[in-house]
Order: sequence, then C-alpha cells, then structure tokens
Amino acid sequence: MTPQRLVEIADLHRRALLEDVVPFWLRHSLDREHGGYVTYLDRQGGWYGTDKPIWLQGREAWLFATLYADVERRDEWLEAARSGVDFLTRHAFDPRGKMYFLVTREGRPLRMRRYVYSEVFAIMALAALYRATGDELLRRRAIHLFKSFLTYLRVPGMIPPKIDPHTRPTKGLAPLMCLVSLCETLLRIDPAGPYEPLIDETIEEIFRDFVKWDRRCVLESVGPGGEVLEGPDGRVMNPGHAIECAWFILEVARRRGDRALVEQCCALIDIAFERGWDAEHGGLLYFVDVDDRPPVQLEHDMKLWWPHNEALIAALMAFVATRQARYANMYEQLHAWTWRHFPDPEFGEWYGYLRRDGAVSTPLKGGPWKGAFHVPRCLLQCWKLAEQAGAA
Amino acid sequence: MTPQRLVEIADLHRRALLEDVVPFWLRHSLDREHGGYVTYLDRQGGWYGTDKPIWLQGREAWLFATLYADVERRDEWLEAARSGVDFLTRHAFDPRGKMYFLVTREGRPLRMRRYVYSEVFAIMALAALYRATGDELLRRRAIHLFKSFLTYLRVPGMIPPKIDPHTRPTKGLAPLMCLVSLCETLLRIDPAGPYEPLIDETIEEIFRDFVKWDRRCVLESVGPGGEVLEGPDGRVMNPGHAIECAWFILEVARRRGDRALVEQCCALIDIAFERGWDAEHGGLLYFVDVDDRPPVQLEHDMKLWWPHNEALIAALMAFVATRQARYANMYEQLHAWTWRHFPDPEFGEWYGYLRRDGAVSTPLKGGPWKGAFHVPRCLLQCWKLAEQAGAA
Repeated sequence: MTPQRLVEIADLHRRALLEDVVPFWLRHSLDREHGGYVTYLDRQGGWYGTDKPIWLQGREAWLFATLYADVERRDEWLEAARSGVDFLTRHAFDPRGKMYFLVTREGRPLRMRRYVYSEVFAIMALAALYRATGDELLRRRAIHLFKSFLTYLRVPGMIPPKIDPHTRPTKGLAPLMCLVSLCETLLRIDPAGPYEPLIDETIEEIFRDFVKWDRRCVLESVGPGGEVLEGPDGRVMNPGHAIECAWFILEVARRRGDRALVEQCCALIDIAFERGWDAEHGGLLYFVDVDDRPPVQLEHDMKLWWPHNEALIAALMAFVATRQARYANMYEQLHAWTWRHFPDPEFGEWYGYLRRDGAVSTPLKGGPWKGAFHVPRCLLQCWKLAEQAGAA
Repeated sequence: MTPQRLVEIADLHRRALLEDVVPFWLRHSLDREHGGYVTYLDRQGGWYGTDKPIWLQGREAWLFATLYADVERRDEWLEAARSGVDFLTRHAFDPRGKMYFLVTREGRPLRMRRYVYSEVFAIMALAALYRATGDELLRRRAIHLFKSFLTYLRVPGMIPPKIDPHTRPTKGLAPLMCLVSLCETLLRIDPAGPYEPLIDETIEEIFRDFVKWDRRCVLESVGPGGEVLEGPDGRVMNPGHAIECAWFILEVARRRGDRALVEQCCALIDIAFERGWDAEHGGLLYFVDVDDRPPVQLEHDMKLWWPHNEALIAALMAFVATRQARYANMYEQLHAWTWRHFPDPEFGEWYGYLRRDGAVSTPLKGGPWKGAFHVPRCLLQCWKLAEQAGAA
C-alpha cells in the first residue's frame, strides 16, 4: 500500500465516522425523555419501535465514551455516553444482578435470556466511560461486572444450557472471544488484575479446540475437548465471527510484540477469508458448512454488515502487523465490495442486511441487532490503523 | 375451473404424492436401527445429520398413518407410522410428561423448549394411527395428551413466557390455530368430547383479537384483548400462517355447512394473499410488516415451501366451497409459481428455501424444520379437493 493510499483510507474512515455515522446516531437515536438509545431506526432514521435491546445500549454507550476518551472531548459525546450508562444502571439488572436482554423504552423488563452478552457490552461501556471521565466508581463497577461475567461462564449450572450437557456437552467460541477482548480492555484500567494469564489460557483454548488447521476451519461450537459435534451444528462456521476473533487475538499479539502469535492470527484470517468469500457475487457469506453439506440457517447466504466490518479491521491490522502484500490485497478486495454495497449516501449510515447478490433486503439502519457499534468501530479502527501504517 | 382441469390437478397431486414424495421419505428417512425418522436429508436424500427434531417425528408418523387410514392399506406405511409413534413413546417425554424439542438419533434428550408443538404433532400422529389401526390405547393417549396440551396453554405459569407478562401481556395466533385443528381432529375419534364449544370460542377469539379487518391484516401476536403491541413484533404478519389458519377454520365451516363462516374464511384468505404475494418476483413473502415499516426478520423476503403449500390448499378449498372464479384464479397463480420453483425433478421431493427471486438458497430436502409434512399434506389435500370439486 502506498503512503498516499494509507492517507486516503485514514481520511475516508475519519470523515465517514465523524461526518456521517456518529451524527446519524446522535441525531436519531438519543432518547431525551427516558435516557438510553432507541435503535429501531428506519432508512431515514425514524423510529419504528422503541423497545431497548440491552446489548445495543451498552454498545452505543461504549462508542460515545470511546470517542470522548480517544478522539475528542466533545460534551455531546460525553452526555450521550452517560445517558446510556445511566439507563443500564437503572434498568438493565434483575434483582439477582443478572442483566436483561430487552426492556421497554421506559426501562421495564421484557426479556431475560440465558446468555451473558448484555454483561459483555456493559463492561465495555463502563470501562470506556471510566477512561473518559476518570470516575473511580465506573472502574470498580466494570471490574465487578467482569467477575460476575466470569462466574456465569465458569460455574456449571449458573446458566441453564441450551443443549442437555449430560447428552452432549458443548462449548461455544463466542464467550471465549469476548473473554479475550474484555481482558484486553480491563488490562488498560486495572493493570494489576489477573488478565494476562486469563488471556493466555483462553487463546490457547481457542487455538487448541476451535481452530481445525487440517480442515482449514474455525468451528462455532465443539465438545469440551474440541471434539467435533454431530450434525450441522458441529460443522457450522461463521466467517465474520472467526475473523473478529482473529483480530481480537492479533491486538494482544501486537501489544506483546509476539511474532509467533501474529503469524497464527494471520493464518486464522486466511482461513476465515477463504471460507467466507463468495466467489460468485463477492462479499462474505454469513454461515458456511465446513464440509459443504447443506446449510440450515435460512440467512446463511446473506451479506451482513458486521462480518465486513470485522474483516476490514482484521485485514488492515494484519497488513500493519506484517506489511505483507496479501493483506493489502485482501483489504482492498473487502474494501471495494463493502463500500460499494453497504453505505447509504442518500440518508446516511449503512444498510445492514443484503441479499447474496448485494441488493438491499431490508432498509433498516438499526434494529434488534444492528446498533451504533460495528460500523463506527470499524471506521475508528481503520482510520487509526491506516494512520499508524502511514506514520511507521 | 373446467372438469378437465380438476382431473389434471387431482392426477398431478396424486402422482407427486405416491410416486415422488412419499417414496422419497420412505427410502431415505426411516431409521431402521433406532426407529423414528432421520429428517436431515440433502438434495439426494443423504443424511447430513441424525438428531431427531420431535415435531418432525410426530408429523412424519401422522403422514404415514393418514396414508394408511385414508389412501391405501399398505403395510410399509403402517410400519413406518408405528416406528415413529414408538420412538415418540419411548424417547420424547421428559420425566414430568412434557415433550422434548430435540433428541439424538438414539433418543437421548438434547433440548427442551417452552413451546407445546411437540405435543400438537404427537396428538395428530396418535389420532391418525388410531384411525389406521383401531387400537383403543392410541385413542386414549391422543385424548390424554390433548388435555395436557390444553393445560400448558391455559394454566398461567405452566410455561415460562418469553416476554415478561407483567410488563407486556402477549398472546400468539399459533397455539389457537393448533387448537382449532386438533379439536377438528379429535372430534373424529372422540365424538362425545368437548370439542365443538372449544372450536367456537377459539374461532371467535381469532377473529376478534388477531384479524384486523380495517387494517386488512392478521397479526401473529397481540395483547390479551387484541391490543396492538409496540414495535415490529406488534406489526408482524406471516401470510403463510394466516392462510393456514384460514383453511383450518374453513374445514370447520364446510363440515358444519356454515355459509357465514365460509365467507369469513374467504375474506381471511383474500387478506393473506394480498399481503403475502410478491408483485415483483411472484410467490409468497415469509414475513411482512403490516405498516410497511422495515422488516426485522433476516429471512423476511425468502420464499419458503410451506406457505405455498398452505396457500394452495386454502385457495382450492375456497374454490370448492364457493365456486367463485377468484379462488380458481388465485389457485392457478399460486400453482404456477409453486410448481415452477419448488419441485426437484432430478432427485425428487421439493426444495424448501428459495431466495426472493426464486433461486434455490439451500438444496436440503429436510432439516431441523422441513420434514415429511407440508408438501405431502398439500399433495393429499389438493388431490382430494380436486376430486370432490370434479365429482360435485
């Protein structure tokens, strides 16, 4: 990549972040009456629903706090971040301290689920707001909630398992990826905490049990010792997820200057890209069966925004870490398809759900799953990575 | 419709049922080692998974028992039906008598869910096998399981609700549709049972609370008094579901000779067809937002096999009941699109999952949701309806 191209990339991402995406969410999603964010935004940003998915409250609060901490001290960003964290604090916890999945606009509980991802994004929001404000209480709450997350993850019976563990013990990639990323986050605000060994053992577990080098795949769930599970659930790969996992670990490797781990992450990125890229229409498929048996997820061949966001970050990070042309090329291939299909120049922000051929399937900009997170995180990361690469 | 066209339709459906679809499932899905059926069948009928979804065990047992009872006394059909009912009896009930959602090939429990549809399809299978064999024990078990189904449905707290009922009391169309259909089934084997008043009150509740005549829609979930719920969940319509509901009630209306109810069902079919038909590509959309706000289901614009099966039955039944040309035309429009896109003349049976434009999305013939049910039931119903219409 030429220095000029790196400047172009940095500039494109910075402008899209600060002039399009962040203003879109600031303008349309803040709930000035009840606090927090309304994420059901149609193409123009109008509200088509007001229930509040808790994951998306934490994610949007993380975004605004991170912008304030790392980009610029704008009051409106800090206020927006505080509004989300306040809403979570007041409305997102059940009496036993477990976080809900969905509440009403006013904050009344609608749905509890067995997962702990509400906790993951709340920890990220608390940690980022601590970095933004220096408020010690936020730091302590982030650390406390991380301990709760770890307990749910590790103590059997805390969360009723979806699949009967007596018949088929199963473990998933998702909580382990989150664990690596959370440890990397908390290390910054709690340097004396137990995060480095946790990171080590989790990365080891991911590479040992979920990555199958000989079959060139990364599995979403496996048995306790990495055994391949029966049927399509045992063969499902989510390329966007695998590539997100790869850059979470690559961040650790770069911080530590661990060249061997950098190489392993790059090999993971290679596998995810090779499995996910749609040779016919371009873009990344949502789910693939690693043995090319019939996929059972109805949406398997759709093109979703977030795997493209994660892949752009991973490819650019791999280029910055290795300076290999293959990652510059991978980045450019992803960049061309993503920027041609996802952004909506007319009304701002990005579409989230495209059909296999790249046509828009639903024009929503936000909903139960898409919020102010993957797009702006990608824009921020690519901007900063391109700047680093240009400066180096 | 000309008498000749009705003969053609009857013949097409009879042959597809007896020469293609039933042989496909007989040949590929019987588990001769453990009993029951393997439903994860790829394009050629090969197994790509062996776990057993309980709904699909009941549905396939219903099919074979119904064929034996109503079409022809073939031993292989009776054996196939018994194999499914035996498997359910031995492996599908937890210690408290609630039925599982998924078990292994051998019958070990994998997943329990909050719903009672495993019960619905088991009741249908038991009732059909009773009609096939006259075995009084099967009749008693069907009636007993129906009582259990009704208890789960009506006693608050028996099933943990998905949405907090203190915050937002909610009821769904699906269990009520099933209730009408089960009552109609049990009436045949238990004429002294309490089914007619149950049918009456359920039909009344459906028309009063779920059908919104002024907005020309049928909602999937509403408040306890038919209140429209907040957000996209309160506006979601599944046209295939609505049209299936319409023919369930139309069967009641035809049996009773209730012309007013026939008219109501036809109006329901009109609404479902008008909402579901895709003017651009043809076929029926899977989900629509009744106010044309952005759909949030990723698969909303896909074309699935089963809504087309239900719509074909409904349109032909409406034609038989009214002799109106609009239902002959509706039937022919559905027939042309369905038969052009779903059947696989090369390897038999039908594809289940098409993209909006009608291209095959995944080539599976069976899986976690598609089994030996909607296609053969449609073939059997349309065959018999066309015969009745021709004979009348």
